[in-house]
Amino acid sequence: VYDETIPHFLRMLTNLSSWLDQAQTYADERGFDADRLVVARLSPDQFELARQIQSATDTAKFCATRLSGETPPNWADDETTLAALRERVATAIAYLETVTPEQLAEGATAKVSPGFLQGAWFHGVDYVRGFALPNFYFHVTTAYSILRANGVPLGKRTFIGQVPVQPPE
Amino acid sequence: VYDETIPHFLRMLTNLSSWLDQAQTYADERGFDADRLVVARLSPDQFELARQIQSATDTAKFCATRLSGETPPNWADDETTLAALRERVATAIAYLETVTPEQLAEGATAKVSPGFLQGAWFHGVDYVRGFALPNFYFHVTTAYSILRANGVPLGKRTFIGQVPVQPPE
Repeated sequence: VYDETIPHFLRMLTNLSSWLDQAQTYADERGFDADRLVVARLSPDQFELARQIQSATDTAKFCATRLSGETPPNWADDETTLAALRERVATAIAYLETVTPEQLAEGATAKVSPGFLQGAWFHGVDYVRGFALPNFYFHVTTAYSILRANGVPLGKRTFIGQVPVQPPE
Repeated sequence: VYDETIPHFLRMLTNLSSWLDQAQTYADERGFDADRLVVARLSPDQFELARQIQSATDTAKFCATRLSGETPPNWADDETTLAALRERVATAIAYLETVTPEQLAEGATAKVSPGFLQGAWFHGVDYVRGFALPNFYFHVTTAYSILRANGVPLGKRTFIGQVPVQPPE
């Protein structure tokens, strides 16, 4: 399950980092405080940008540790500035880069029982495909849409980012 | 690659269908024309609900046919009512239910060359993980967020929907 998860978390978090860079540039150009974006949200009862980014990075982190059995690093969820959110993403990228295919070698058949399931559990592969990936993409997409709805000029191509294509033959 | 794609497209499109049902109920309760939601969008330069749903269903359809080599069904992209969008989702679900694991048995190593790549191509498995899944989740999440931003009371749990868990032991 390494190939289904970690490289894609890394690619999308790298994209997310570039959107935050563009948000800073946009704020500078327009002359507003970029940190105002940290509390922006799409709906009054939906999480703000900070929590979307915390959730995306946590989903990737917990996916790695629940499949490997390692202890997850603790991240404080105390970001109040755009710079701190960029640092949060950088921390998550650095952590995921330490995760090896060997650590997830038994991940597909791991028994994964997040606390919110109250004793129920996933086969590792079901957890990846039925929960971790949808949840990760949900939060990354919502972070993207919050920035875009606030005027940051992000094209759709920016969302997908670099794709692993082969050159024309 | 069947297990990585088709069942998850089906689950998420079933969830999407339930959000559209909830949107109709919400419009009826509040006494507005539900079809107004069809052109709702999160940003003025981002696609409206109809196009998000067309894109989500097309992404799932093309994923299936590009991996199997079958000819994709043609869907007209002419939906202007919420009822027509629900029908579009139902059509996509019915189509995906006809796709068999056997049809995608060679999908992981298929050479996938969508027109927009102008001759470049993906290995099938890279196409699934690096393009089809992110793109599908992007459009489904954005459809969800458009409805929620317009007041439809969708909880986050509604996004993930039924997860394939095992009972407590």
